[in-house]
Amino acid sequence: MENIVVKYTDEVTLNDPILIEGLPGVGNVGKLAAEHLIDEIGAKLMAEIYSIYFPPQVLVNDDGVTELVCNRLYYARDVGEEKRDIIILTGDYQGMTPQGQYMLTDKLLKIGNEFGVKTLFALGGYGQGSMVNKPRVLGAATNKDMVEEAKKIGVVFDREHPASGIVGASGLLLGLGNKLYDIQGICLMGETSGYFVDPTASREVLEVLISLLDIDSISFEALDDKAEEVEELTSKVMDMDLGSNVGQDTKSEHLRYIG
Amino acid sequence: MENIVVKYTDEVTLNDPILIEGLPGVGNVGKLAAEHLIDEIGAKLMAEIYSIYFPPQVLVNDDGVTELVCNRLYYARDVGEEKRDIIILTGDYQGMTPQGQYMLTDKLLKIGNEFGVKTLFALGGYGQGSMVNKPRVLGAATNKDMVEEAKKIGVVFDREHPASGIVGASGLLLGLGNKLYDIQGICLMGETSGYFVDPTASREVLEVLISLLDIDSISFEALDDKAEEVEELTSKVMDMDLGSNVGQDTKSEHLRYIG
Amino acid sequence: MENIVVKYTDEVTLNDPILIEGLPGVGNVGKLAAEHLIDEIGAKLMAEIYSIYFPPQVLVNDDGVTELVCNRLYYARDVGEEKRDIIILTGDYQGMTPQGQYMLTDKLLKIGNEFGVKTLFALGGYGQGSMVNKPRVLGAATNKDMVEEAKKIGVVFDREHPASGIVGASGLLLGLGNKLYDIQGICLMGETSGYFVDPTASREVLEVLISLLDIDSISFEALDDKAEEVEELTSKVMDMDLGSNVGQDTKSEHLRYIG
Amino acid sequence: MENIVVKYTDEVTLNDPILIEGLPGVGNVGKLAAEHLIDEIGAKLMAEIYSIYFPPQVLVNDDGVTELVCNRLYYARDVGEEKRDIIILTGDYQGMTPQGQYMLTDKLLKIGNEFGVKTLFALGGYGQGSMVNKPRVLGAATNKDMVEEAKKIGVVFDREHPASGIVGASGLLLGLGNKLYDIQGICLMGETSGYFVDPTASREVLEVLISLLDIDSISFEALDDKAEEVEELTSKVMDMDLGSNVGQDTKSEHLRYIG
Repeated sequence: MENIVVKYTDEVTLNDPILIEGLPGVGNVGKLAAEHLIDEIGAKLMAEIYSIYFPPQVLVNDDGVTELVCNRLYYARDVGEEKRDIIILTGDYQGMTPQGQYMLTDKLLKIGNEFGVKTLFALGGYGQGSMVNKPRVLGAATNKDMVEEAKKIGVVFDREHPASGIVGASGLLLGLGNKLYDIQGICLMGETSGYFVDPTASREVLEVLISLLDIDSISFEALDDKAEEVEELTSKVMDMDLGSNVGQDTKSEHLRYIG
Repeated sequence: MENIVVKYTDEVTLNDPILIEGLPGVGNVGKLAAEHLIDEIGAKLMAEIYSIYFPPQVLVNDDGVTELVCNRLYYARDVGEEKRDIIILTGDYQGMTPQGQYMLTDKLLKIGNEFGVKTLFALGGYGQGSMVNKPRVLGAATNKDMVEEAKKIGVVFDREHPASGIVGASGLLLGLGNKLYDIQGICLMGETSGYFVDPTASREVLEVLISLLDIDSISFEALDDKAEEVEELTSKVMDMDLGSNVGQDTKSEHLRYIG
Repeated sequence: MENIVVKYTDEVTLNDPILIEGLPGVGNVGKLAAEHLIDEIGAKLMAEIYSIYFPPQVLVNDDGVTELVCNRLYYARDVGEEKRDIIILTGDYQGMTPQGQYMLTDKLLKIGNEFGVKTLFALGGYGQGSMVNKPRVLGAATNKDMVEEAKKIGVVFDREHPASGIVGASGLLLGLGNKLYDIQGICLMGETSGYFVDPTASREVLEVLISLLDIDSISFEALDDKAEEVEELTSKVMDMDLGSNVGQDTKSEHLRYIG
Repeated sequence: MENIVVKYTDEVTLNDPILIEGLPGVGNVGKLAAEHLIDEIGAKLMAEIYSIYFPPQVLVNDDGVTELVCNRLYYARDVGEEKRDIIILTGDYQGMTPQGQYMLTDKLLKIGNEFGVKTLFALGGYGQGSMVNKPRVLGAATNKDMVEEAKKIGVVFDREHPASGIVGASGLLLGLGNKLYDIQGICLMGETSGYFVDPTASREVLEVLISLLDIDSISFEALDDKAEEVEELTSKVMDMDLGSNVGQDTKSEHLRYIG
């Protein structure tokens, strides 16, 4: 097999599409946001990407049926007031090694480039290491114009954050996109504790995204329901922490898998 | 050398064969099952597979003669009531890295594909982390039909197990087989503690397999003898645990190598 | 993408240039020295090198703009009394794996070779594991003539240091340069504690370098200012060590990033 | 650069040569033996092998001159009563990864094969984990004939040793040699504690080797001197262990580098 295999499930032509990435990461903020967006705008699967850079693993769904771990590309047409075509990237894992990260990101940019992508939005979380009450959305972009535009709607560009830069698929999409494919991009990072999946941070990130994209307001109901569920479970876990350790592991485990 | 070298020891043509995999893994359940089946149906060696993805190692047999670590393919013709041809895959190791797992599995599927394989059975153990009295056989398959068929003869499809999917050769054979080679498959996992080699779990898995394949009943004597041997040694180890630690390591070590 | 991508930012022809390397390493001695030299002689960027052997990361500058991590080549013409052309190599990281180190160094030597490089100077630190009051400059070279020449101006060739040889880009530039490209070279290592960035060691290394290259004396003001800043912070940290641990981590962190 | 670069320093034709390997390993038994043999029979350097599978490192000799780490091939003609041509393989390191081990060993076998090698001897140590008074020489070979021949002169073929086979270059030379190049071989392992370099074990291995090769008796003086030096230092270290820990590390370090 090739190191990366792209299997198109739909023959698609798109008009000047933008690329939105939400892969697993801190608090699963980016993945939750991407999946919510896919649901709300009715995006359709266009390709699956298998790779030796992913873990050698199948997932098993509720029917007992296996699915090879992969990344997935979805598309939607005429989204929002500006009628933009959109490609959304999400998946089960990011590449497992630095080399894998580079190779996968480069492949995804190549695909985006073929479809005419000129702009991308990388969604993720920024782990604060402590509970976050009202998550801000931190940003970094490949050029000053995008920085300025995002500042206007409240995205925070803080010279201390992220201190060590942006690691992983979000960072590389911006870095390689800019240097090798002339694709400009911005990374939107919702503040999160980093301890749990965080649908609240995902919502904040999505609000910024739909504002930047002039997408008609979308419903956040499903995301809010998840946030509530997490809230409930974290409260219980914290109560238990004060009481005893019995059962805690199972609950924490559960928490991580919501979404 | 190529990253993977296939050395055929026999020129074979097979008729619509099924592929059965039993490589080392949890409790060595799959490997023991595959080796027992090879013995009972008199399967013959058809190929050895060497690879840079295995450890750089030779094993030394009782005569002091070295053998390069490898995977091995065996074949048998006209097996069971349905006179099916069978290829059995076993070996000393699975690939040592994710990339190695992908590359080896893909190569094995390519070989299977050339021989006309359309269906595969991946045998393995499911580590429960505690002693298992009456091991169930858990399953996962590439499609709902195989799930339903296996359910009828008692295979358990439990949405909690395996929670994180199936990792390694068994998982990839199903995942890559389904996505890249149009080969359908089922993974049969015998419950086991995960602490010792477990011939009892292997027997349970084999009973399911021969039922699914309509193979005439085979003898389990050799496997039962091994199970008894393990049983005796584990009892001793447990007795010693209650007494002292002297000699325990050696016995435990011994246990792991039965089979 | 290629494993290593070289992006020239300037079309340059050089006359018999020498190559000077200062990549991140112990005490960042080499990198600080290279960057100071670039500033003082007004060297200009000629190429950026991206690679799968670097971390999958972008850095974010004070404007919120991202930069893909890379190595950079600078050049300057007619430097010093001997009017030598110079190429200076610095960057954000060294290769992350042994294979990456070999591949990147080989690529850099190939580039140097194309520009006609016959001699190289590798700048770095030698970690003593304890505070160093007056750092010496230790050396190692690809041939005896360079050793003798450097001894004359005070470079120390001590059979105990470095006991285990020179690891990383500096070592490989000498080793591969000598064996595969007929490029001769010397490594100049400023003694440093290894605990902090060390502009003082960088200055010592630079003094040796400009003496060997007959470069007119350059100003060390910027480097001395940094040294003072580090001095102040380390004193504070040490005072705090005697007092309490509060705030120490932050200061130490800060220290590492000066430069 | 190629992943493995072979640089011949001498154009050599050899007559039916045998290959003797002594690379770094447990107690450096094989390397010491190979180096002693090179000295005693006056073998000459024929090739150096550089590789991305070695550490990215140069060693520094007593003159301050750097040497890229490598493996080395030496040759000697008309050795012993049977006037055999010999190739001796030694070096600074073995490959650092499983893949590197396979690739390097395969390359060395390819070279041996081109020179007409049909038989090889892999020299090494067998770490017992406790002090060994009179080291035996353990063996493993690619065929029964070699096992029987070696048994006659006292080589021990013990079904418990080595229990887990032979890992690294020695094992692979036998395994890959036998399977891919039709080269037969035997591995001779001198028992050693594994804590220090062990010239005594090297001598035992060499005595077996020269007996198997009908080489006229060679002097062991240099090896015996080293053994005495190690003996002295180990005694001191052990005395100190009973006394205090001061200075112990330095001595132990020194011990490891004899040879």
